[in-house]
Amino acid sequence: MTDEKEQLVLDDEEMYDKALLDEYILNNDIDEFRTAFLELHSYEQSEYFEESESDIRQKMYQFLSPEEVAEFFEHLEIDEEAYEDLFEEMNATYASQILEHMSYDNAVDILNQLTKRKIASLLLLMNKEDASEIKALLHYDEDTAGGIMTTEFISLTINTPVHEAMMRVKEQAPDAETIYVIFVVDEQKKLVGVISLRDLIVAENDAYIEDIMSERVISANVADDQEDVAQTMRDYDFIAMPVVDYQNHLLGIITIDDIVDVMDEEASEDYSRLAGVSDIDSTDDSIVKTALKRLPWLMILTVLGMITASILGSFEETLEKVALLAAFIPIISGMSGNSGTQSLAVAVRNISTGEIDEKSKFKLALRESGSGLLTGICCATSLFFIILLIYREPILGLIVGSSLTIAMTVGTTIGSVIPLIMNKIGIDPAVASGPFITTINDIVSMLIYFGLATTFMTYLV
Amino acid sequence: MTDEKEQLVLDDEEMYDKALLDEYILNNDIDEFRTAFLELHSYEQSEYFEESESDIRQKMYQFLSPEEVAEFFEHLEIDEEAYEDLFEEMNATYASQILEHMSYDNAVDILNQLTKRKIASLLLLMNKEDASEIKALLHYDEDTAGGIMTTEFISLTINTPVHEAMMRVKEQAPDAETIYVIFVVDEQKKLVGVISLRDLIVAENDAYIEDIMSERVISANVADDQEDVAQTMRDYDFIAMPVVDYQNHLLGIITIDDIVDVMDEEASEDYSRLAGVSDIDSTDDSIVKTALKRLPWLMILTVLGMITASILGSFEETLEKVALLAAFIPIISGMSGNSGTQSLAVAVRNISTGEIDEKSKFKLALRESGSGLLTGICCATSLFFIILLIYREPILGLIVGSSLTIAMTVGTTIGSVIPLIMNKIGIDPAVASGPFITTINDIVSMLIYFGLATTFMTYLV
Repeated sequence: MTDEKEQLVLDDEEMYDKALLDEYILNNDIDEFRTAFLELHSYEQSEYFEESESDIRQKMYQFLSPEEVAEFFEHLEIDEEAYEDLFEEMNATYASQILEHMSYDNAVDILNQLTKRKIASLLLLMNKEDASEIKALLHYDEDTAGGIMTTEFISLTINTPVHEAMMRVKEQAPDAETIYVIFVVDEQKKLVGVISLRDLIVAENDAYIEDIMSERVISANVADDQEDVAQTMRDYDFIAMPVVDYQNHLLGIITIDDIVDVMDEEASEDYSRLAGVSDIDSTDDSIVKTALKRLPWLMILTVLGMITASILGSFEETLEKVALLAAFIPIISGMSGNSGTQSLAVAVRNISTGEIDEKSKFKLALRESGSGLLTGICCATSLFFIILLIYREPILGLIVGSSLTIAMTVGTTIGSVIPLIMNKIGIDPAVASGPFITTINDIVSMLIYFGLATTFMTYLV
Repeated sequence: MTDEKEQLVLDDEEMYDKALLDEYILNNDIDEFRTAFLELHSYEQSEYFEESESDIRQKMYQFLSPEEVAEFFEHLEIDEEAYEDLFEEMNATYASQILEHMSYDNAVDILNQLTKRKIASLLLLMNKEDASEIKALLHYDEDTAGGIMTTEFISLTINTPVHEAMMRVKEQAPDAETIYVIFVVDEQKKLVGVISLRDLIVAENDAYIEDIMSERVISANVADDQEDVAQTMRDYDFIAMPVVDYQNHLLGIITIDDIVDVMDEEASEDYSRLAGVSDIDSTDDSIVKTALKRLPWLMILTVLGMITASILGSFEETLEKVALLAAFIPIISGMSGNSGTQSLAVAVRNISTGEIDEKSKFKLALRESGSGLLTGICCATSLFFIILLIYREPILGLIVGSSLTIAMTVGTTIGSVIPLIMNKIGIDPAVASGPFITTINDIVSMLIYFGLATTFMTYLV
């Protein structure tokens, strides 16, 4: 063993030799391929699989057992729609065996992407036990605790002695999703405690689980939102968390690796919505597909933008008299949009990290408006002096400045209040995307600007 | 034990009785307070501490040992600047003992927030061993692998027999940050393998570590960016990862709980930058503080906005002749800003998740421009017909429509190319915030619009 060859450090771009693996496959060198491929970490295997074309993948199904394929299918990160094609290209029995060998929660994630018909036919081909476990998990909403939990966990009853518990852990180690956190149930399978493998290892052999377990166990209800579960696991530094039904029966567990994925997913979602893009992570989309995905939003914004245009059109007379007013349209609408987006981001982020309660909502909105007013006054003052300097028009400077101040105050208020209201009535506040708030603020700020300008028209001309 | 009382389910808003704890403290009921408080999970303890005022905190320092305080200090989530005040309000010896009892990585995170002077005085009061370990960790940049690793890990040499390894694990369990992943080193302390506690438990007692360890161990270099480490741990589903120096000596480990925090931090950072806010998570800031934080950015944008205003001012003549042109300023600048922000978000997100390499960069920029052109044509066509319908001005419709198409194409190009260039020259692309791209696009789109309008002026009037 040479250090050079076996040690992988992050910087290495290529974790495996794709060309070599391709060559083995194309030459039908089954043994060489299997040796080289099975030596890779399952994540690297999944990367190779993702990067391969259909003909290579077909050979892989021939060279590898469903169990071996299941191993790296756990790591696949492909577009949701791609699973449909993937399962079409392989033999149905082979496909069902792959799913059988995956952990239940990941098998369910994949099945959720397929048609009802396909799911039914795959379940039919599985062994009865796996099929019924998976079927039960399929009932839960994808983004709830039930949707991400697995039923492959170790549980112990309170009256188990430590030495027996260690034996149970050893036996179940190969199948369980984690053996490092073990949940304790009573005779009715109700969750009553938790114990870590660490505690179990250092405990006296003749002690009972009841004596060494912690009774303060924090669980998620099966219907809880996955984002809330992620937040709790993050706060408490848990590596696994139990999921219970309304009667406190232990149904499954959620492990930290799934939570890491949830966090990534939710962060991507909030981020892309702030930018008004629906699906940020599909790098392989064609130009047309990308355009089609974004078009609905952009068309809505165009129509909303026409409202702003009509408002300005109705002030045509004012504009004809003082054409210079038009020069400050972008800065006023832009600044109210920018500060509104800032407030939106703060409100959405605070709602989604759960840092906000009823009383702090009002505080947040007040702080945002107040900060809009203060920053508005500062920006307006500098703008006033710039206009005075360049155009020597104090009245114009005053009108532009006051419009900017009012527009920024109203902008930050709208930016923070709209997501708070949406959260209140049960809509995900991240839906109020940046472009949406910006467009609303455009309309409002133009009304303010030209309202003021028309009112004080006589002083301008 | 009643189920009701001991079982905590996510929905419960209050995880503990703040009023009761406050009462114990104010009545000097040391025993009652300690019983109730020490029963809480350390995360809940940290929540209570964070929500308490200075007088309550002073009492807590009297009632609890530094070790007990250290336990929940690991979970504190307070503003970076707040640590300074926190450590001022307590006795220096007590403070140093708290840090001594924390895990090294978290102690270092806290120390990094204090002044050099304060750090030196605290280190002086600690026991020599802890002080030197912590001092060594303080040398690493906060956002590198070295900055988030801990040196409290279990390592074994290759020639250790399994039964002896299990004994070592038992011994070191109370202090190690994790016992579930154990790294294997050779005589020169170079990293040569990894083994999970799961493997160790199911292994034969008389086997040697060398026989059962995995030699394919993936490590981070001490200087690697924390974001890259997080990405790798997420991809591979690791719960711990080793950190090595350039000679492959094992220096420390990074555990998944720290990675979860890193991911949250990085997501917040990308998100807030897209909105152009520097610090999104400080909910307790006053109005003035919030305003002061945002002001620099907003002032820069005001000045940049004046560029747009001057450009428009130079087209005063055009505007005087056709005042209606002004009505379409917000829609053209807004749409090029919106589509630019979409492209920006896609580019930044793809760069930060590492999904992009040299050849796909060009593809991404091309796709963004192409999609800008296509969506531009669609939005422009609808806008043309709306203008025709409302104003019966086909030439105006043509000018507005073509400007919109060009502005959206240029907008998406700028939105995707600028972050790619910044990444190339080593600047974090997330710095190119949404408002910045929007303002650049404002300038460009107005030049396009009024350039076209002035050129085809004769057909308009």
